[in-house]
Amino acid sequence: MPPFDLPEGDPFGPHNLPYGVFSRPGTPERTVGVRLGDHVLDAGAAARALGSPHASLLTAPTLNPLLAAGRPTWSQVRAALRAWVTDPAHRPVVEPLLHPLSSVTLHLPFEVADYVDFYASEHHARNVGQIFRPDAADSLTPNWKHLPIGYHGRSGTVVVSGTDVVRPAGQRKGPADPAPVFGPSVRLDIEAEVGFVVGTPSPMGSPVVLGGFRDHVFGLCLLNDWSARDIQAWEYVPLGPFLGKSFATSVSAWIPPLEALDHARVAPPQRTHPLLPYLDDSAQEPAGYDLRISVAINGHVVSEPPFSTMYWTAAQQLAHMTVNGASLRTGDLYGSGTVSGPTERERGSLLELTWNGRDPLELPDGKRTFLEDGDVVTLSAWAPGPDGLRVSLGEVTGRIVAG
Amino acid sequence: MPPFDLPEGDPFGPHNLPYGVFSRPGTPERTVGVRLGDHVLDAGAAARALGSPHASLLTAPTLNPLLAAGRPTWSQVRAALRAWVTDPAHRPVVEPLLHPLSSVTLHLPFEVADYVDFYASEHHARNVGQIFRPDAADSLTPNWKHLPIGYHGRSGTVVVSGTDVVRPAGQRKGPADPAPVFGPSVRLDIEAEVGFVVGTPSPMGSPVVLGGFRDHVFGLCLLNDWSARDIQAWEYVPLGPFLGKSFATSVSAWIPPLEALDHARVAPPQRTHPLLPYLDDSAQEPAGYDLRISVAINGHVVSEPPFSTMYWTAAQQLAHMTVNGASLRTGDLYGSGTVSGPTERERGSLLELTWNGRDPLELPDGKRTFLEDGDVVTLSAWAPGPDGLRVSLGEVTGRIVAG
Repeated sequence: MPPFDLPEGDPFGPHNLPYGVFSRPGTPERTVGVRLGDHVLDAGAAARALGSPHASLLTAPTLNPLLAAGRPTWSQVRAALRAWVTDPAHRPVVEPLLHPLSSVTLHLPFEVADYVDFYASEHHARNVGQIFRPDAADSLTPNWKHLPIGYHGRSGTVVVSGTDVVRPAGQRKGPADPAPVFGPSVRLDIEAEVGFVVGTPSPMGSPVVLGGFRDHVFGLCLLNDWSARDIQAWEYVPLGPFLGKSFATSVSAWIPPLEALDHARVAPPQRTHPLLPYLDDSAQEPAGYDLRISVAINGHVVSEPPFSTMYWTAAQQLAHMTVNGASLRTGDLYGSGTVSGPTERERGSLLELTWNGRDPLELPDGKRTFLEDGDVVTLSAWAPGPDGLRVSLGEVTGRIVAG
Repeated sequence: MPPFDLPEGDPFGPHNLPYGVFSRPGTPERTVGVRLGDHVLDAGAAARALGSPHASLLTAPTLNPLLAAGRPTWSQVRAALRAWVTDPAHRPVVEPLLHPLSSVTLHLPFEVADYVDFYASEHHARNVGQIFRPDAADSLTPNWKHLPIGYHGRSGTVVVSGTDVVRPAGQRKGPADPAPVFGPSVRLDIEAEVGFVVGTPSPMGSPVVLGGFRDHVFGLCLLNDWSARDIQAWEYVPLGPFLGKSFATSVSAWIPPLEALDHARVAPPQRTHPLLPYLDDSAQEPAGYDLRISVAINGHVVSEPPFSTMYWTAAQQLAHMTVNGASLRTGDLYGSGTVSGPTERERGSLLELTWNGRDPLELPDGKRTFLEDGDVVTLSAWAPGPDGLRVSLGEVTGRIVAG
């Protein structure tokens, strides 16, 4: 039975309860909110009114104190929230603390510590390989099936959904150009990804094993790793992407905790190469997630990448990221890498969808190879929940504006 | 005249006054210290005792509030400090607030926001190119002379000088190996660098021009970008270094402000390629720095890399890092890249000094190709100051311990 007046089957029902940070007009203070349908519960106010021992975690201006509290506390807070929004006895207290989404401002939900981006979709990696190295014997680099390739990105330019993205300027040089030229990127792209948010830190020198994923990771979000392909192509040999990515990374405003996705857990694809023990998940619980992503440009859906096809899981990425002894901090964020499925309509970037501009997309408002000023890109996703319900991951959206 | 009882010509005299963060035995509180000779001035206590309006900046547990205050405040604070440590009238107040270095614990002086590492020494880049691509027509990649190549590193594993470095484990695969193997790195290396510390932030979408360097950068430090060459070699194509670097980066405990290095400013090397306007520094003040670095293993000096030979300046690196609209945050740290001069004794990594292990170094305690457990690596540096004085950049040291 849905709580209060929530419609039956709402994907933001009490089976979801994602966390965010909001403020209300006239009150600049930010505080923790929990989404219920098209409302935001002032979770801190509810905690105080109901005498919760966790009120201080829920009245903070970011999710970081809650993230740092660790899994036992996460479970207690989630259980309490479910009770508050489902028990009719709490209705008189809780209902006045539900604010329409349209009446609040949503903020970046957590302070990002380090941001790492992976490259975990085999379909994406093969597409990119075929586009940029058409003559190579194998479209994957030799290391691809042995480790989840990743690199550090810029945490200072992670922004919340709804933030405009200024078209970056930079150097580019085509193979036939005698010298690089400078100007606004002419190949601005999307990367549809899922982000994982670290709560519990780990000390330097102590790798997190595969089975430690749920102890350290709080929840997930949608992530658009905006990419300027022309800037990236000229700069990235030999030390990787830099300015082609660092201008902006957008994340969704709502962070569903891992528990909300428990019904979406699936086995990852069959491994084609033997894995070193620290990455071998054959004896682990299924660590993939069946998340159905949708990519829309100006409201027109252009792709539906299936996250279940990702070769490397978030647990493997975490184990790899720390196997050298690197520590984790509360607020660390890592992206899955572009999610692309096996078919043309499942590709998570315009680079792939247009095959590097060769096959423009036909949108209602004209052709697209890469993004144009004014374009609004929206990634959304849902996952199977309990009892046939859907769990919404919300959306991450951003509009391209001229520099 | 040196202040108080400081020896004539001390490289930590009132012409230097680097900032750090310290605590005293029995008092866990961290506070800002300023080094004077072999003593640390409790700058916050001095500020309070002398009625300074900047006391709150100097009693913080990190340098970040001071960094955020901006250049006019930085100048005022430095002028005040010089007066406090040179005017005999202040001696009765200041002298009791000078603690012997040996009696305090030094901490990471600032909270690192984003960490970026560059690759700005032409000699280093050419050495690396010749080692890894011996058959290439040019030892530099085609982009090298057009932009300062850089990438983001892990800010969560930046540690203060004196912190032990645990030998990282990871995957490696030699060209003849059928599959990667896992184990402790067998090619653990040094990278002798200089780090630049950002104070004043900048908003997204607003590049910092070359002339903005002194408005945004507070000071510098020594930086050892520890590198596991075997891990790096296997992982870095196509997205750059990741676990080969992310296990630890050490920085010196003392941050001289830029003003302390004003007498060390020199013109960078002659540019061999025309630069795009945002990087063209031909009409700017000289933006190189004459810093004389020394690299020692277990007390034995193995190299003296000259920072004045760096092709790309810190001002160019800052302009490049932000030209795509990326914002700066207080506490951003960027490394110069390995400093290597033109001669064999001026190389800033063991990779170069031993030519990838082919030519072992002869140390008093035996041969070295790469670092062994127990090795203590110390980078130190000085620069020309006013009136023939030297400005010390202190040192960054770290001992390798088994994982």
